[in-house]
Amino acid sequence: MDQMTTSATKPLGTFELHAQDGEARRGTLWTDHGPVQTPVFMAVGTKATVKAMTPEELKDCGTQVVLGNTYHLHLRPGEKLIQKMGGLHKFMNWHGPILTDSGGFQVFSLSQLRTMSEEGVEFRSHLDGAKYFISPEKSMEIQMDLGSDVIMAFDECLKYPATDEEIKKSMDLTYRWLLRSKAAMTREKSLLFGIVQGGLSLEHRKYSLDQVTSVDLPGYALGGFSVGEPIELMHELVPKIAPLMPKHKPRYLMGVGTPLDLILAIDGGIDMFDCVMPTRVARNGTLYTWAGKVSIKRNEYREDSSPLDPECDCYTCRTYSKSYLRHLFLSGEILGSRLNTIHNLHFYMSLMTRAREAIAEKRWAEFKAFCVSRFMKNKDT
Amino acid sequence: MDQMTTSATKPLGTFELHAQDGEARRGTLWTDHGPVQTPVFMAVGTKATVKAMTPEELKDCGTQVVLGNTYHLHLRPGEKLIQKMGGLHKFMNWHGPILTDSGGFQVFSLSQLRTMSEEGVEFRSHLDGAKYFISPEKSMEIQMDLGSDVIMAFDECLKYPATDEEIKKSMDLTYRWLLRSKAAMTREKSLLFGIVQGGLSLEHRKYSLDQVTSVDLPGYALGGFSVGEPIELMHELVPKIAPLMPKHKPRYLMGVGTPLDLILAIDGGIDMFDCVMPTRVARNGTLYTWAGKVSIKRNEYREDSSPLDPECDCYTCRTYSKSYLRHLFLSGEILGSRLNTIHNLHFYMSLMTRAREAIAEKRWAEFKAFCVSRFMKNKDT
Repeated sequence: MDQMTTSATKPLGTFELHAQDGEARRGTLWTDHGPVQTPVFMAVGTKATVKAMTPEELKDCGTQVVLGNTYHLHLRPGEKLIQKMGGLHKFMNWHGPILTDSGGFQVFSLSQLRTMSEEGVEFRSHLDGAKYFISPEKSMEIQMDLGSDVIMAFDECLKYPATDEEIKKSMDLTYRWLLRSKAAMTREKSLLFGIVQGGLSLEHRKYSLDQVTSVDLPGYALGGFSVGEPIELMHELVPKIAPLMPKHKPRYLMGVGTPLDLILAIDGGIDMFDCVMPTRVARNGTLYTWAGKVSIKRNEYREDSSPLDPECDCYTCRTYSKSYLRHLFLSGEILGSRLNTIHNLHFYMSLMTRAREAIAEKRWAEFKAFCVSRFMKNKDT
Repeated sequence: MDQMTTSATKPLGTFELHAQDGEARRGTLWTDHGPVQTPVFMAVGTKATVKAMTPEELKDCGTQVVLGNTYHLHLRPGEKLIQKMGGLHKFMNWHGPILTDSGGFQVFSLSQLRTMSEEGVEFRSHLDGAKYFISPEKSMEIQMDLGSDVIMAFDECLKYPATDEEIKKSMDLTYRWLLRSKAAMTREKSLLFGIVQGGLSLEHRKYSLDQVTSVDLPGYALGGFSVGEPIELMHELVPKIAPLMPKHKPRYLMGVGTPLDLILAIDGGIDMFDCVMPTRVARNGTLYTWAGKVSIKRNEYREDSSPLDPECDCYTCRTYSKSYLRHLFLSGEILGSRLNTIHNLHFYMSLMTRAREAIAEKRWAEFKAFCVSRFMKNKDT
């Protein structure tokens, strides 16, 4: 059911829309490293590894796409080194599609002593204080050197909250940077996605969307969410702006989110997601299950011989008890981080698989209601 | 070649001696969780996990036996909890043989405020200062609750250096504790091994050996090495005492050692080993190869696209470059610890496989010379 019949390889960048149910969409995006079934959740592999996981385990969890971080890889080990080693796919032994961000988000969130100009951003590394300069051209060069399948345009990611004037100025700059990104992105095997900004106002978002979609690109993203705003504002805005995005191009909501966020965004017409959440919270002992979030350190699991999630068929749930997972977590064991990460990623990927099936089978509303009822039990899920 | 034809299951505790070449021996020890081919290196799984590894990966590396630490498991999560969860094998999902130490070594090396008496040792936990008491009877009870296949007698592990009088007194106490251990070890599926102490004097070792072997047991160990003495003293003493140990029982050198230590001890007639070395140093970026030790962080590996050890066929060496391993290590990535551990354990297990083959094929001297020449290049290997 899930793998649509895609008998032949399609031209790079093709986005096939197989089904739509309400605004929710079921599609396939064709990249240089194979097709991606959407809606898709992409696993974040910041420093050329999805933390604690091998590529084989990622595949086993149902991972289709790995996201690499331009900022981190530029600083260490450097894209030129990775290029010499045969590119990011070969370096990290992940032979599925890779999407790289532009570095913009990290430059604005992690680096020190930033100096913005029309040309780009000068900043100091959060690792050692060394000085760097990233411009749209530089971001494209880095992502092309990495050999990324999907390259993100270099944008300004504004802080929250921001004034109308700041937002307007930032959107215009992001647009000019998009034009420069497109001119600089000359690698034929890569797809360039543009990023819609505009904060939390629908009007600003529409303005930015018009600007960004005036440039013909194989995909468009919504940036600037998950930057500290109340989550309800995102839940409200995404279903208003997503349907206005080009119908026959993939729509990517960057840096989002919880299982509930994903379901609500798919309901609004979003196709692609990435987030550190499932992997990061796993290492902190927080696990997503079909019965809500579980903090594995809790005393009630001390002698609990049952699996973490009886509805899950991941390696962790098939093999280990909550009691053992609790013990590993409390002992600070690496295996604990591994087993928790396997479960959370598997949970996210299963959620996407079930979403794809529900849309294809025209029972999206029912599946959405089921997810909302399950995840709303625990507001944070 | 390596798996001797063992057509039928033998009675528990049977030790078959298949071949001997010089003092080096090739055997099979029968445990409740299957046969163990010797010489064997046992992977240390202190807290119910071999750090960074799944049981499946341990198998893939050629691991036959996992060692659990009585002291650590007693403190957290507690043997009663593990027993309720179905025993240590089930708790950690390792269904091969498990050997547990007696807790003695850790009581003497890790705990605080020890008070020794004829009865046993009172101490405070290194975790939280809580008061505990371990006696021979308590150690047996813990190990039986864990469901261990090979249980070690509770002994006093003396500090180095110690006076003749201290050594003599300690050996006599260890002997009396052995008698109590044997009386208390009532689990029929477990094998009890006695521990020969006696410091670094051959005379003391002989005295202790006579005491310990006066008790009929399925195996005997040499304890009290790797406690800070110059390594040459161990290299000298082990080949003198090992051949005096019962020929038709397995001989276990506890807590040893480097690849060179293992080869020299096998040459002296030792059958079993355990050591945290391969797993611990792996996490610190030190890797054993057939060309000597490698510190993966070194700058010379920055752009080295070759595998860590071209003579190794482990997952790490088949899949990744030194450049990538260096990057993971410098970035503090969990995957680095994993890939390094896989390699080091695979290296140790391969060394044992090749040793078993060499002994069976009567070319031990040649193999030993080969190993010594390889490992002596770098004294620490």
